[in-house]
Amino acid sequence: MSTTVIQHVLNRLRDIGVSHVFGVPGDYAFPVDDAIAEHPDIQWIGSCNELNAAYSADGYARVHGIGAVCTTYGVGELSAINGIAGAYTEHLPVFHLVGMPKMPVQAHHTLVHHTLGNGEFDLFRKMSDSVVCASAIMTPQNTAAETERLIAAALYHRRPVYMAFPADLAEMPVVGKAQPIPAPASDPAQVEAAVQAVIDMLGRANSACVLPGILTARSGLGAELQQFLDATALPFATMMADKGVLEEDQPAYIGMYDGKLMNESVRRFVEDGDVVVLVGAMMHDFNSGAFTANLDPGRTIDIRHHHVSVDGMTYQSVEMKDLLDALAQKLPRKQWPRPSAEVTRMASAAGNGDDLITAENLYPRWEDFLKADDILVAETGTASMGMAFARLPHGATFQNQSLWGSIGWATPAAVGAAVAATDGQRVVLVTGDGSHQLTAQEISQFGRFGLRPVVFVLNNHGYLIERLLCKDPDIAYNDLANWRYSELPKALGCEDWFTARVSTLAELDQAMETAAKANTGCYIEVLTDTYAAPPLANQLHENIDTLYSA
Amino acid sequence: MSTTVIQHVLNRLRDIGVSHVFGVPGDYAFPVDDAIAEHPDIQWIGSCNELNAAYSADGYARVHGIGAVCTTYGVGELSAINGIAGAYTEHLPVFHLVGMPKMPVQAHHTLVHHTLGNGEFDLFRKMSDSVVCASAIMTPQNTAAETERLIAAALYHRRPVYMAFPADLAEMPVVGKAQPIPAPASDPAQVEAAVQAVIDMLGRANSACVLPGILTARSGLGAELQQFLDATALPFATMMADKGVLEEDQPAYIGMYDGKLMNESVRRFVEDGDVVVLVGAMMHDFNSGAFTANLDPGRTIDIRHHHVSVDGMTYQSVEMKDLLDALAQKLPRKQWPRPSAEVTRMASAAGNGDDLITAENLYPRWEDFLKADDILVAETGTASMGMAFARLPHGATFQNQSLWGSIGWATPAAVGAAVAATDGQRVVLVTGDGSHQLTAQEISQFGRFGLRPVVFVLNNHGYLIERLLCKDPDIAYNDLANWRYSELPKALGCEDWFTARVSTLAELDQAMETAAKANTGCYIEVLTDTYAAPPLANQLHENIDTLYSA
Repeated sequence: MSTTVIQHVLNRLRDIGVSHVFGVPGDYAFPVDDAIAEHPDIQWIGSCNELNAAYSADGYARVHGIGAVCTTYGVGELSAINGIAGAYTEHLPVFHLVGMPKMPVQAHHTLVHHTLGNGEFDLFRKMSDSVVCASAIMTPQNTAAETERLIAAALYHRRPVYMAFPADLAEMPVVGKAQPIPAPASDPAQVEAAVQAVIDMLGRANSACVLPGILTARSGLGAELQQFLDATALPFATMMADKGVLEEDQPAYIGMYDGKLMNESVRRFVEDGDVVVLVGAMMHDFNSGAFTANLDPGRTIDIRHHHVSVDGMTYQSVEMKDLLDALAQKLPRKQWPRPSAEVTRMASAAGNGDDLITAENLYPRWEDFLKADDILVAETGTASMGMAFARLPHGATFQNQSLWGSIGWATPAAVGAAVAATDGQRVVLVTGDGSHQLTAQEISQFGRFGLRPVVFVLNNHGYLIERLLCKDPDIAYNDLANWRYSELPKALGCEDWFTARVSTLAELDQAMETAAKANTGCYIEVLTDTYAAPPLANQLHENIDTLYSA
Repeated sequence: MSTTVIQHVLNRLRDIGVSHVFGVPGDYAFPVDDAIAEHPDIQWIGSCNELNAAYSADGYARVHGIGAVCTTYGVGELSAINGIAGAYTEHLPVFHLVGMPKMPVQAHHTLVHHTLGNGEFDLFRKMSDSVVCASAIMTPQNTAAETERLIAAALYHRRPVYMAFPADLAEMPVVGKAQPIPAPASDPAQVEAAVQAVIDMLGRANSACVLPGILTARSGLGAELQQFLDATALPFATMMADKGVLEEDQPAYIGMYDGKLMNESVRRFVEDGDVVVLVGAMMHDFNSGAFTANLDPGRTIDIRHHHVSVDGMTYQSVEMKDLLDALAQKLPRKQWPRPSAEVTRMASAAGNGDDLITAENLYPRWEDFLKADDILVAETGTASMGMAFARLPHGATFQNQSLWGSIGWATPAAVGAAVAATDGQRVVLVTGDGSHQLTAQEISQFGRFGLRPVVFVLNNHGYLIERLLCKDPDIAYNDLANWRYSELPKALGCEDWFTARVSTLAELDQAMETAAKANTGCYIEVLTDTYAAPPLANQLHENIDTLYSA
């Protein structure tokens, strides 16, 4: 039997690691939906809505390296577009598969549903163009070649791609063949020159620090980065977006670097040292302590995915993997100094019994709750600003949307992460009430697919980070509808879950003890004061001018 | 005190009827959010997420004539974009107010949150351009004039507009003044010629029928259309998208026209008559019985918003209002024939007691439940396909997204409609389980703002319309997470609501009786068989080829 357009694409996505596709079905997408549901190696994961599906594909790609989401024409793809933009910003190769009306319907400019009523069919693909690295409308003639082009683009840029399938073409046989496009190779001369430049710069240095970046993890180069670190014995600090790229339970870890806002000893060590080595990291607002970070470009080695800059000189065609491998082999090991202060974890969890829950006693408890290999999904806002300063146990990762920062992302992303997680690997979702309200229905997919996360919903009666950043914290728009969060899982079909609503430390400790042992999903609503904020959030409140006027 | 950019815009929106703005706050939008919250004549209505906010603004504009939604940069506006596209398609003037980073941040291409990390700030406005009729970035210098241009565009086209507010400019004083742009005037000669052409064509006709269109209602010309009808004594039929434009409790109403799919006697009367008068209606797929409607262009008078076509001749610069007024004055009254068969309402509600709920006994009950002045919000899918054939009581309207057809729209749109409703006017939401799952959290806003709708959720265990249109009805993607719908309102903070879960007619009748008298919001989960579909949905199932291959 010949392979159809959509089967060919799915087979190739399967080859590169896609085992699940998130989505909402729709009539123009039926040929795509059918092919996914019938594919022997791929599972359809229905989402409550398309934005949630895109967020789930994002979460899945963070854990699994690659993800896919399927929506219908117009209504579906536009609902998902903010989630695709998030994947673009956060460097995740998510394949967006979109069903389209049949070609004759498009050619005749027929007035059909899911169009604007103006007979135009190319508008939505164009709207997506800004938030993907490549796109194509798949036909029998172009599918073999275009699939390889789009896969290569997604993997090279670590960005989403858009693939549209006219309903009549999707089930036609593919014409012709195409070979996978090889990943770009480094220029050996450039690598050699870059390695020498790095050796020279670090050779002159008495102190240095690595700042590992999220692009390293996104490119699957965590092991290479660790080898580089092991070989050179360099210490490293971590910025918010990049947390968890390297294990934090190793002596080389000196703590979180966040400009002048937090951990002054780390800032001094990083900024006052002779050299800083950035590896796939970006200095955006929330990664730089609201631009209070101050790295001297003349003392910075900036290793990017496909090039590196050393001392003002940029070496092109230098693949990160090749450079890290070469550096691990050739850089001499040194006794690099470390900072004296120990700031790699929070203060011990204080308080007990009927004490109310505060930021000071809550975040250290959450830090203690984490265990090896956990996937911590931390929602944008005060929750992630607190959890960024927890020390991650071995193998645990910290998932956050630091740059795109779309509230609501975390709940569906945690679903995607749970689908991608290996057996026994736990997903811990920490979200705020305001953010949770955007996408809370996705909790139901955990129950439906037998996933067992631990969900903490921080109920502080509104958008806390906004209260801290706007001019009148008590202004009406920061308030929310008053939900009974802990009753949601049952209403959403998570019948056997452990749920709790806690406002004292005794209740919190009891609930966390139960959750730690539970064989079901767990959902714990944690009540705090309206203004219970972790230190970074309060620091941002104090540094609003820096944050918004850089 | 001088008026700021955002105050000026809000004052002008207030002048043209905006009393509520739906939205989700965000830091770049704080100056806009602040001004809305502080405006004496405008109320901030917080939504759970931005897509829901856009849908609510759509529902509000349907009832109130105009609407507004406010989102933050990037993440917020892109989440809302599908709702804006829906307002575009369905001809609703919704003002999309978007907060942006400050101008220096944009000018310096600073890497800040809610951007793609590429230093570009103009991408999202461009993405919106396809789904609005005009857009502007508001500055102190351009605000006076641009506000008038955008208002005029929104009212002329009955489409959304996009207004972006850089955070530093929004609170600066407006420079200069501008007068409102007058609505376009008809060319009297063209009106006269068109009127004569219509008189000639109808003068030669022995039978004729009007098909009133939704654009008439969107343009606030329902009264003019009724006067035209009263003066001429013409009968009318209605298409799905246009239902409720004219009162259905008048003798001139002959029933729903849906091509060959439904009401054969209406089809024959409409298509076999000498003249059909379309007034602001569009012949798209779900308005034409999946293109089984067959109107002879040579016998059609097509009255549009700003022009009219009669017998192959188009008269430009003819405003619908002027034409309807002139026709009401000049067209001679005739004894126009009516069809003999009576198909303006459903068969009586049958069954009782322990009978299970079926499509046949459910939809007539819902028809009977409607009362004068109700706003019926009917979700895309089988629910609206059933309710389109209910006869509306006096003053009641039928709200449906027939062309855009974005499932999930109805629940937040009902919130918007309820905010816009006059005292004592009831909102009845009829939605399916699959559609409800996309946006169900918005139920909480009814409770929060003291609104008291009657919500019916049709639980048929999946996407029924998709089961009827795809190749394998039982395929996995048509299934849903299994929610306890009737427990949702309480979990979402609607503490005092009447809720019920009914599967027999006795339970349904009892619940509807309670709901009819209730002084609280009501939420009734109606269980039916997986395949309990109203006649139109089954007809579409039988006519798939026509629907998708026209």
